[in-house]
Amino acid sequence: MAGKKVLIVYAHQEPKSFNGSLKKVAVEELSKQGCTVTVSDLYTMNFEPRATRNDITGALSDPEVFRYGLETYEAYRKKALTSDILEEQRKVKEADLVIFQFPLYWFSVPAILKGWMDRVLCQGFAFDIPGFYDSGFLKGKLALLSLTTGGTAEMYTKAGANGDFRYFLWPLQHGTLHFCGFKVLAPQISFGLDVSSEEERKVMLASWAQRLKSIWKEEPIHCTPPWYFQK
Amino acid sequence: MAGKKVLIVYAHQEPKSFNGSLKKVAVEELSKQGCTVTVSDLYTMNFEPRATRNDITGALSDPEVFRYGLETYEAYRKKALTSDILEEQRKVKEADLVIFQFPLYWFSVPAILKGWMDRVLCQGFAFDIPGFYDSGFLKGKLALLSLTTGGTAEMYTKAGANGDFRYFLWPLQHGTLHFCGFKVLAPQISFGLDVSSEEERKVMLASWAQRLKSIWKEEPIHCTPPWYFQK
Repeated sequence: MAGKKVLIVYAHQEPKSFNGSLKKVAVEELSKQGCTVTVSDLYTMNFEPRATRNDITGALSDPEVFRYGLETYEAYRKKALTSDILEEQRKVKEADLVIFQFPLYWFSVPAILKGWMDRVLCQGFAFDIPGFYDSGFLKGKLALLSLTTGGTAEMYTKAGANGDFRYFLWPLQHGTLHFCGFKVLAPQISFGLDVSSEEERKVMLASWAQRLKSIWKEEPIHCTPPWYFQK
Repeated sequence: MAGKKVLIVYAHQEPKSFNGSLKKVAVEELSKQGCTVTVSDLYTMNFEPRATRNDITGALSDPEVFRYGLETYEAYRKKALTSDILEEQRKVKEADLVIFQFPLYWFSVPAILKGWMDRVLCQGFAFDIPGFYDSGFLKGKLALLSLTTGGTAEMYTKAGANGDFRYFLWPLQHGTLHFCGFKVLAPQISFGLDVSSEEERKVMLASWAQRLKSIWKEEPIHCTPPWYFQK
């Protein structure tokens, strides 16, 4: 939709990968709609995943015992976070929709993207206590996980060896995105890359492009505990 | 138990933290039993979390399109993985029990520990296709997640805002540890650190020390899909 701002947080090492193609398709389709699209290409940025004292410029609140959560909370308020975090927070703040594009690593995001979540979504910026879940500070924004798996869709069903894909999405969709106040759109999962043909990949790419055409009309999914696991 | 080998993969920045104390208590208690205890102190090691081309020494199988999983699988077989990964794999191989000690970050492990999982537990070493879940290559070993949370135990119940703690443990206990063949012992969760008193912390530390006295007699939990979510 013209005028909307989209941030794509992209975590794949290889531009020629299928993840690279999914990212490219999203940039093209959303730009065509008149959206402003920004990409955080984490590997190209060599984005720092470790949560350390280096994330705070200047003196610590407690030089004796280092508490990452407390120190970054303070640093956010004093504008003393390191510049790579501030830059990502600026991008998130501007965005109407954040798309996370990544290959599934151990039922979760790759560490470089986990580090983006650990460091960028700090207390004070993304949430506070109180000020989480439906009152998280990123409320009004949409988020969407677009991921690829090696295993097939059948493996990620209730009766499959990996269980329903909604199970592994819980910490990300509820525990992270919903916690920060995002409305979460249905995940875009490109299953079975280890066994898919060139033709099947083309179909997956096309269906992502197609979905993006009407993405602004979608209703978010429900991310609260009883609904999530009982259906 | 005398003669047993334990690896503690420890992910906290501050030795004086409660995580540091939990780690210390485990080293002391297990050493007292006659176990050999090794600690991988990830922040002190400045452990690399990013999965990149740097993990492979020498030439790539496919210099045109970089696929991390395929290249590290090949590199494992050709003994061409970088030395920090080989060193961790050696520690895992020797261990009878691997304890992961960490604070919960976004319903999961901190990125530095996610990176340890992404990079160390590579195909060929920890599993193969086929050769996963009950036939994962680390079968015969035990694993245990010892973690701290800010939120209280009540928040991590079925009816609580965060849902049952078993939900967020799924990607770690089933999708990662069970996938590699580990038998998983019940998690040790020290809840509610944000609101606990000095006295309550002492009780939590003591209960961890107490549990470790009979850790070798414990039965593993069941990590398969139907059991996990229906109880």
